[in-house]
Amino acid sequence: MTPKAVVLLSGGLDSATALAIAQGAGYACYALSVDYGQRHSAELLAAERVARHLGVCEHRVVHLDIGQFGGSALTDSRIPVPEAQAEGIPVTYVPARNTVMLSLALGWAEVLDAEAIFIGINAVDYSGYPDCRPAFLMAFQALANVATKRAVEGRTITIEAPLLYLSKAEIIRVGERAGVDYAQTISCYQADAAGRACGRCDACRFRAAGFLEAGIPDPTHYADASLSE
Amino acid sequence: MTPKAVVLLSGGLDSATALAIAQGAGYACYALSVDYGQRHSAELLAAERVARHLGVCEHRVVHLDIGQFGGSALTDSRIPVPEAQAEGIPVTYVPARNTVMLSLALGWAEVLDAEAIFIGINAVDYSGYPDCRPAFLMAFQALANVATKRAVEGRTITIEAPLLYLSKAEIIRVGERAGVDYAQTISCYQADAAGRACGRCDACRFRAAGFLEAGIPDPTHYADASLSE
Repeated sequence: MTPKAVVLLSGGLDSATALAIAQGAGYACYALSVDYGQRHSAELLAAERVARHLGVCEHRVVHLDIGQFGGSALTDSRIPVPEAQAEGIPVTYVPARNTVMLSLALGWAEVLDAEAIFIGINAVDYSGYPDCRPAFLMAFQALANVATKRAVEGRTITIEAPLLYLSKAEIIRVGERAGVDYAQTISCYQADAAGRACGRCDACRFRAAGFLEAGIPDPTHYADASLSE
Repeated sequence: MTPKAVVLLSGGLDSATALAIAQGAGYACYALSVDYGQRHSAELLAAERVARHLGVCEHRVVHLDIGQFGGSALTDSRIPVPEAQAEGIPVTYVPARNTVMLSLALGWAEVLDAEAIFIGINAVDYSGYPDCRPAFLMAFQALANVATKRAVEGRTITIEAPLLYLSKAEIIRVGERAGVDYAQTISCYQADAAGRACGRCDACRFRAAGFLEAGIPDPTHYADASLSE
């Protein structure tokens, strides 16, 4: 039987690449998106497009109102999204987001009897986020090894983060080869309702620099047409 | 400044006791309930009553549709709730539930700058649940130690499970002293809309036996009046 994997799919560049890698590795993929009250809900539409294009077995969206906790520029409209990178942990950090999303994936993986969970976290460009670090990933794997029925029965669920040590340019090159259509993805922290990127936030700047370095034309739809190639 | 704690509050006997213990320990308590599509939504009303009675700083309910994953008698109406305990992991186990709930608590704790998270898990009566075991708790603590902004800044969030090694009778005695009104709590896996317990499921039987052993009159409202004291 084809092994199953749950893939966390945000609609951004990284998670689309993680999905393509999981499919290339032979997993039957179950995409999971979490609507956690992020400002950029255009991302969820992007996730649907990517899931359809890459042909997943199933795509589920879990609605979760953690935006009510506040504390992040991505869920609290009173905190402005910065246009230049500041020192330390960015205000776009959503408290415990990856912990929550991996937990949800773990629950679905258990029900599906899946062998793996794929997450597109990256320690290079997002070193400011505590839950994008290798130490976080190892701790979550250790948790998964004791937290589930499957684990008690001696079969673990492997947490796979294939992009962990890749640069943005490397991610883009890998994804291109694996069939990702990056025009379908949205990385912008404040994309407009039509899914067009601002071109100015951290996420936009990392992404644009990645395409430039990879030597691949940037297919991003920018609100400011002068930024488009 | 009074230290803050997030307390996971289900409306059941155990979590009400954990809340009373957290308050007794001097924490300013922030109660968090998760509406995960459990059949026994009467529990959420019970959580509100308990939170009001014990006087928390704030009570939040997060809505989360993990019931869509299925796999548990508590969220999937096609799986019957058993009336006698079977071997192994019960069908009332909700995949990754405590992992998900602790993750949500971790996110709120981070925003509140809370020092602790209280959870009423218990390794004695619920040894069949993988995520009620000491090994699970230790693994989640290790995760919390690397997963948050607060942790990166050198201040951890302690996961407190004060009921972990107590019997149901001991929990009830501790809670009585700490001011819990157990008539407000609901433990039944299939309570009716009026919040009355079936008296027959595992949760009802553990609870009734606990009151009996503690020598404290059982204040539970049973649907079958002949079960009430």
